[in-house]
Amino acid sequence: MTGIDDLPVRDELRGKSPYGAPQLDVPVRLNTNENPYPLPEPLVERIAERVREAARDLNRYPDRDAVELRTQLAKYLTDTSGHQVGLANVWAANGSNEVIQQLLQTFGGPGRTAIGFEPSYSMHGLISRGTGTGWISGPRNDDFTIDVEAATKAIAEHRPDVVFITTPNNPTGNAVPRETVLALYEAAQAAKPSMVVVDEAYIEFSHGDSLLPLLEGRPNLVVSRTMSKAFGAAGLRLGYLAAHPAVVDAVQLVRLPYHLSAVTQATALAALEHTDTLLKYVEQLKSERDRLVAELRAAGYDVVESDANFVQFGRFEDSHTTWQQILDRGVLVRDNGIPGWLRVSAGTPEENDAFLDAVREIKKEQSA
Amino acid sequence: MTGIDDLPVRDELRGKSPYGAPQLDVPVRLNTNENPYPLPEPLVERIAERVREAARDLNRYPDRDAVELRTQLAKYLTDTSGHQVGLANVWAANGSNEVIQQLLQTFGGPGRTAIGFEPSYSMHGLISRGTGTGWISGPRNDDFTIDVEAATKAIAEHRPDVVFITTPNNPTGNAVPRETVLALYEAAQAAKPSMVVVDEAYIEFSHGDSLLPLLEGRPNLVVSRTMSKAFGAAGLRLGYLAAHPAVVDAVQLVRLPYHLSAVTQATALAALEHTDTLLKYVEQLKSERDRLVAELRAAGYDVVESDANFVQFGRFEDSHTTWQQILDRGVLVRDNGIPGWLRVSAGTPEENDAFLDAVREIKKEQSA
Repeated sequence: MTGIDDLPVRDELRGKSPYGAPQLDVPVRLNTNENPYPLPEPLVERIAERVREAARDLNRYPDRDAVELRTQLAKYLTDTSGHQVGLANVWAANGSNEVIQQLLQTFGGPGRTAIGFEPSYSMHGLISRGTGTGWISGPRNDDFTIDVEAATKAIAEHRPDVVFITTPNNPTGNAVPRETVLALYEAAQAAKPSMVVVDEAYIEFSHGDSLLPLLEGRPNLVVSRTMSKAFGAAGLRLGYLAAHPAVVDAVQLVRLPYHLSAVTQATALAALEHTDTLLKYVEQLKSERDRLVAELRAAGYDVVESDANFVQFGRFEDSHTTWQQILDRGVLVRDNGIPGWLRVSAGTPEENDAFLDAVREIKKEQSA
Repeated sequence: MTGIDDLPVRDELRGKSPYGAPQLDVPVRLNTNENPYPLPEPLVERIAERVREAARDLNRYPDRDAVELRTQLAKYLTDTSGHQVGLANVWAANGSNEVIQQLLQTFGGPGRTAIGFEPSYSMHGLISRGTGTGWISGPRNDDFTIDVEAATKAIAEHRPDVVFITTPNNPTGNAVPRETVLALYEAAQAAKPSMVVVDEAYIEFSHGDSLLPLLEGRPNLVVSRTMSKAFGAAGLRLGYLAAHPAVVDAVQLVRLPYHLSAVTQATALAALEHTDTLLKYVEQLKSERDRLVAELRAAGYDVVESDANFVQFGRFEDSHTTWQQILDRGVLVRDNGIPGWLRVSAGTPEENDAFLDAVREIKKEQSA
């Protein structure tokens, strides 16, 4: 039987498996940082309405530049950050993964390198490899904070073309202080200059503010965002970035023409009309996240401070065994391969209760 | 003012402009090979219905493997080609451009090369460059057919990793004979072995049959398709491929996880339910295409035999001047940069009349 390795695939793909969390059919799924709240019915209706309208013109190519969508995304960023962002500063694509891929095709690629401080969002490294960009695994402290000195030293030594800073960090949950980002930006400019991508996929859940205001006067800085989490629209695949207009011009040199479908644009626009309602769910999730942190600590677990809609907890002699024990109790969490730790997404109060019951029980059995 | 060239973009992007036909607001747009027939209203309603359903689950990631959609695409291919195609043979992405990008990330990339026989679909070369794949411009005869001897010689000489064959060819309209494709496949296997991608974006408009049956026993062959043209859904961005299951496994090593949104999957599934109706529009367009060929010839133009939903016509001393003359008469056609030729998409009978009136008038003025 012909398999992958019988085909003339690239050498670095041989023996690899596709990225992706197990999609298991389990009562409580807290493994992919999805928003547990379905979109409210009025928004569902509005999506159907806007898509119906778009479908009447579906024989035509979509707006290649997604002008209306980018304008509304810019308005959302301005309204929530206080930093003025306009159409020319915003670019959108099919998920923040595609945004990152376009950035790496523009500023990374063969003969160039990118750095991230690991553990962090593993797609930064995977998409780097997928675009032929050399990947450098930068250091992080044992408590998952970034050591500014060690990180700037790594930048000075490797002179990467792209620097990724995920804040709040995934999968650990902690935010990166503004001063750290500034220090890494300065180090990156001194070393090369290189592009610094601040991945704010989870920023709406943070106790602190977005770093969008840092864009002022920093043309080599990019802030990436997504509608998957705060907007409760993981199924929509809408990622975007804010940056200097020259960055937006540059990614258009590598974007596939008409990359963003008319139905995606219509659905995202409908969701943006309902921003206020959706951000109320974010408030609920933040308080549930805080409850998870408190209850996990009360149950005797180590917990990383979280500014995201998920919590990293431990420590386990064998994370995978504990992952399985939680799964046996009907709750799916994420094993990101970080020894001693697991990650749980904040669900509804009922889902979180089910999770907390499971981990309390496991703790009790262990001490018995 | 900071511009692209002030950013640390890749050297090969400097001075480039984004790909894309001018999007001009003109009464008759026959420049991007769109299907001129809007989707029928019952299908529009069905799309709204299926998207409404998908929106209720939009907080969850979409089916990463798009199983239902790929199953229905496989059924469509089987029904229309007589060749048995199953779920495991089909992969789908955001437009055939993304399909091609994934194929090049898997089988091309840095240190590898791809060949196409030009003039042909220019995105093959552009996406090759975007993925770090060296691009080889293979030869074509003056009448835009492929000279088997010259083409196999080019393959033997350059030993490319990926061979693109567009049939019917864009922008020239002519189909590539089955025997030519077979000969090039054999040459590609003898030289390397390499992957052969048959781009059938316009096959539904052809006088001849799809080359899907050639997949039998040829694991290094890929047939790529799109819903943009025959399904009248350019705005949907749904491209797909059929190949040996190992190829489908292999592209999953490079695809961005959850690349295909739930709304895209829902919309495509709705359109597939209406295949029979949509294929009737294809029949109308084929007869209009044949009329364009006949009338253009009658008006004294040179026309390339067309198996697509567009026609390449000439010859002009200066194509761009004629393009502007046609535009001045309210009709937008495509100047693909092929000296002496222009391309017109088959529109509705009224649009084609407007186009034919314009080119007859221009011919008359020239002979006056």
